[in-house]
Amino acid sequence: MINEHYKEMLGHKSVIRELAEYAAERGREIGYDNVYDYSLGNPSVPTAPEYTREVIRLHEEEDPVKLHGYSPSLGNDKVRCVLADYLRNRFGLPYEKKHIFMTSGATGAIAHAVRAVTKPGDTILTFAPFFPEYMPYINGAGVSLSVVPADTRNFQIDFDKFEEMLTEDIAAVLINSPNNPSGAVYSSDTLERMAKLLRKKEEEYQHDIFLISDEPYREIVYDGKTVPYPAAFYDNTLTCYSFSKSLSLPGERIGYVAANPSARDADIIALMCGQISRGIGHNCPSSTSQLGMAAAIDKTADLSVYETNRNILYEEFKKLGFDVVKPEGTFYIFPKALEDDAVAFCRKAMKYDLILVPSDNFGVNGYFRVAYCIGTDKVRRSLPVFEKFVKTEYFL
Amino acid sequence: MINEHYKEMLGHKSVIRELAEYAAERGREIGYDNVYDYSLGNPSVPTAPEYTREVIRLHEEEDPVKLHGYSPSLGNDKVRCVLADYLRNRFGLPYEKKHIFMTSGATGAIAHAVRAVTKPGDTILTFAPFFPEYMPYINGAGVSLSVVPADTRNFQIDFDKFEEMLTEDIAAVLINSPNNPSGAVYSSDTLERMAKLLRKKEEEYQHDIFLISDEPYREIVYDGKTVPYPAAFYDNTLTCYSFSKSLSLPGERIGYVAANPSARDADIIALMCGQISRGIGHNCPSSTSQLGMAAAIDKTADLSVYETNRNILYEEFKKLGFDVVKPEGTFYIFPKALEDDAVAFCRKAMKYDLILVPSDNFGVNGYFRVAYCIGTDKVRRSLPVFEKFVKTEYFL
Repeated sequence: MINEHYKEMLGHKSVIRELAEYAAERGREIGYDNVYDYSLGNPSVPTAPEYTREVIRLHEEEDPVKLHGYSPSLGNDKVRCVLADYLRNRFGLPYEKKHIFMTSGATGAIAHAVRAVTKPGDTILTFAPFFPEYMPYINGAGVSLSVVPADTRNFQIDFDKFEEMLTEDIAAVLINSPNNPSGAVYSSDTLERMAKLLRKKEEEYQHDIFLISDEPYREIVYDGKTVPYPAAFYDNTLTCYSFSKSLSLPGERIGYVAANPSARDADIIALMCGQISRGIGHNCPSSTSQLGMAAAIDKTADLSVYETNRNILYEEFKKLGFDVVKPEGTFYIFPKALEDDAVAFCRKAMKYDLILVPSDNFGVNGYFRVAYCIGTDKVRRSLPVFEKFVKTEYFL
Repeated sequence: MINEHYKEMLGHKSVIRELAEYAAERGREIGYDNVYDYSLGNPSVPTAPEYTREVIRLHEEEDPVKLHGYSPSLGNDKVRCVLADYLRNRFGLPYEKKHIFMTSGATGAIAHAVRAVTKPGDTILTFAPFFPEYMPYINGAGVSLSVVPADTRNFQIDFDKFEEMLTEDIAAVLINSPNNPSGAVYSSDTLERMAKLLRKKEEEYQHDIFLISDEPYREIVYDGKTVPYPAAFYDNTLTCYSFSKSLSLPGERIGYVAANPSARDADIIALMCGQISRGIGHNCPSSTSQLGMAAAIDKTADLSVYETNRNILYEEFKKLGFDVVKPEGTFYIFPKALEDDAVAFCRKAMKYDLILVPSDNFGVNGYFRVAYCIGTDKVRRSLPVFEKFVKTEYFL
């Protein structure tokens, strides 16, 4: 019998996807060049040439039976070793192959991490603003998501509210730094305070509280900074990663879960993930994509365009009088809307072919997300349009 | 907190995987050429050259930003159209793009099909012998699996037992033709009787009973026959497919669910699958693999080696006095063991470096599975070893 729950879900589609579909449709009418589509987080720069060269070489030179054979359910052995070496050298934690589980993108990584450290009925705590898909990801495991309200001053963490909500029934905490949608990067100070509080509550409640750290934007950080690595601050951390943004490979769906070698049961978490896969129909990434990624493990796409775009848009939003925090990473900026109702604000913007995403689904009201992973030329062309929109609709 | 359920599952590993690991280890000791590893269903022939050529061309010629961009969560639009056209032309059912949902292999296909037409607490009926991974796949959706005992005369269906077990609480029926492990192909007569019975019970119980048809071996069929297509017999059918065997691409994880256009809610089942994905962390296959497959949609790897091997082994097992049904497809043969305890039988075979899989996990006792997707040379070399094993251990 048709499952009524999923049938009903069709009524509640992703706002972001719907906006992107509108933008594509409008593009067919007036030319996509004339639609300022800031809706989707789809990278706009080509992948590293090392990836492409390796995939071509594999198909030209390797035995296709071996190349396309089943990889072990935890991922290609060699690739897991390459990843462990890379993480060990970069972050100084003693990762080995056994700590790495290859996943189908960050989506697959979060699906496994959540199931590994919670059980149905549990609650996970996250922080606003947050990626709206966390809700179905977490609920799909039978787990509830509680949201600590945003600290809108700088989109770090409001520790008073965090401590208040970190009650005994919280099984895990989910963070995302650099953050979609705010572009904030959790500082070392924020991560140190968080780790201290988690350790205190673990002691008090006499149970583990795992930190699930979703880091697909780790490599997109500005002003020559680097992103503090959450697992280096807190032992019970599962790091979730995807190469979608750093290597501009979202369609290849290459991700992983890395268990901090000092975490509880660190040696068996990847094995447990293999068991979780059986129940949710998960397979590790394509064998050729895994090998291609391993050949480009220390490379990224040329990500500089995002910083250029950030600078242009941040200056423009300041100039136009928006209340806006300067993003330190990702390819998003998250200004306060010019009226309380962000949906109304974004609807008005659509009249000017500006496609912006209202913040309500990110757990904050009254803001909007601008995904500036588009060409700088289009960003520049959108500036007078933003100005016209704001002046006409809000008399600024 | 670490999930104790998955931790406990680590104690119950897949017997097939363990045997394959033993075979690999033994291979390192005495040379893998000397291990007659009949454990794993890993194709042994190269993929179609059309696939390889297209993947190389895509990487050499296409814009990498477009090529590796996110594909829609239901799969690449063009690829879904190609598949719908192919299925429509081949099987005469009016498939359109909207009926096709791209999945990460057959595993992903079954995960979605099951959730689309059952709800937690429901029961699905399948037939022995069955692929053991069905158990975690189905249980992972919160659904129980009931097994109709095998008709060991020919591994078609025992309709008396089937009707008896097709009670009002059965939400769906899962079949696998050609069958892993028996190699049986459900005849048109079997499928016609099954459809008739399902329609009768739908009428009687006043609810839909979906047929989930798992068909990864559809193209591996012998003696110039074709496999009757279950959806052509029964409207409420979800066809689950993988290109792992037909195109020898198991590591690329390319599969799909196709909803029979006459099924209940056929127009929204693929959309529902998109919602299901969000809760289980599923992503559609790699965009490049999808496009490569589309270029080889009407091709297969050269599958003739499997028929050669079937012929050799079937004759040998008959000669040695085994009770065995001649496989009509797949690359498996499923003879009766020479003692009631199939595990003991297979353990004795290991002394001769014959790696066979006992039948217990397939829902039948006293049989063993031989996966003959290996080189014909090795099959031939294994014949005197089978003979020695049987004569020494069972005095035949």
